[in-house]
Amino acid sequence: MTESNKPSLEVCLSPALLHLFDVKNSIVVIIDVLRATSTICTALYNGASRVIPVASVEECVNIGRAIGGITAGERDGRVAEGLVHGNSPFEYPREFVENKTLVLTTTNGTKLLHMAKDAIQIVTGSFPNISAVCDYLIAQNQNVILGCAAWKDRVNMEDTLFAGAVVNRIKAHFDVNCDSAIAAETLYETAKGDIYTFMTQASHYKRLAQYGLEKDIHYCLTPDGANVLPLFKDGELIAG
Amino acid sequence: MTESNKPSLEVCLSPALLHLFDVKNSIVVIIDVLRATSTICTALYNGASRVIPVASVEECVNIGRAIGGITAGERDGRVAEGLVHGNSPFEYPREFVENKTLVLTTTNGTKLLHMAKDAIQIVTGSFPNISAVCDYLIAQNQNVILGCAAWKDRVNMEDTLFAGAVVNRIKAHFDVNCDSAIAAETLYETAKGDIYTFMTQASHYKRLAQYGLEKDIHYCLTPDGANVLPLFKDGELIAG
Repeated sequence: MTESNKPSLEVCLSPALLHLFDVKNSIVVIIDVLRATSTICTALYNGASRVIPVASVEECVNIGRAIGGITAGERDGRVAEGLVHGNSPFEYPREFVENKTLVLTTTNGTKLLHMAKDAIQIVTGSFPNISAVCDYLIAQNQNVILGCAAWKDRVNMEDTLFAGAVVNRIKAHFDVNCDSAIAAETLYETAKGDIYTFMTQASHYKRLAQYGLEKDIHYCLTPDGANVLPLFKDGELIAG
Repeated sequence: MTESNKPSLEVCLSPALLHLFDVKNSIVVIIDVLRATSTICTALYNGASRVIPVASVEECVNIGRAIGGITAGERDGRVAEGLVHGNSPFEYPREFVENKTLVLTTTNGTKLLHMAKDAIQIVTGSFPNISAVCDYLIAQNQNVILGCAAWKDRVNMEDTLFAGAVVNRIKAHFDVNCDSAIAAETLYETAKGDIYTFMTQASHYKRLAQYGLEKDIHYCLTPDGANVLPLFKDGELIAG
């Protein structure tokens, strides 16, 4: 807690900066907008019993086999060798995913999640579940770190924009003494009128658009399409 | 060089991210707006023969004694013990600094400068010499990394704003495929109408304002008050 008696709200723009933050005394929101954390809330919203995030394709295959789960993950824009499904939220409608376990490997999001393991609580956030995330953070009254998964440690636009959107919604309840948070919110304020067009400048947009994933990007930038809160417990993400 | 045949222009928001950039094949601009790089260009503009940036107070004292230079540096807002002058650009008018050597210790800027030692060329930038920096970068036609010194590796507002101001001025000559650069420019675009008021939100503003340094901050945010280019050569910064 800070002088103002409100908990602090900070934004960590890259996993390579997480050591600068007091993870142990904070709730950490893992943000990997394109597309891991958008897909995670979508699968849980559509009734998946849990999502197990893993770092490697090998781990994904092994766990998937052991528990009979859906194995999913991409490398360089394609379903990774040995896995059956990809990173798109549209691959996980209710009729497919309900009551199943999704074992998902992603590079950036999973790495950050494991780095934040000592946090008071880890949740995942993205535009499709922004209201659930914000309601939860306000209710907890704890310090919050909005952790951007970034792209191979490089600061990216979409995760920064989401962090800014959250700051914009909940800042009255927190002490915001963090230039990254102010910068992210300013960026979001500029972009919010047409966030999709704003994103067309971004490096990840260009990568995904060349795979024909504009529809995914639209979904991943739209609020509350899968408004559930993924809570990380014992290595699994479950609907809170 | 990139596909467009233009050199690349990137922004590194913190020294803790510099390893992600191709320093060896780039010109690196060291940015420490409040106040090291503002003071460096001011001293050179006012006729100092050179500025020697050093990491520690001890090094500063030793080198200053050996060469008869002016020793300067602050820790926690005060002139550091053993040194004679501080970080304010107003301490270095022509009548004091002309033809002298300034030995300056700063925490954030010096650290980044040493990290970037393999660059094609290191220069220092801040609002008081923004035109000199931009003219130089355009003329070189090389890849550029705008390196923010930040605050103990934490992303800060003032260095990000300056990086954004440079992107805004020179982007037509470069390939900008870097989300940090786009974000910094967007931030600058929002702030530029009244950059001083925008900065009053920032953490470093609050630190310096409590020491009564608003006048310094105004100067450090104003373009072209000391429009000379500090070039780093053999451990020294000289006017280019």
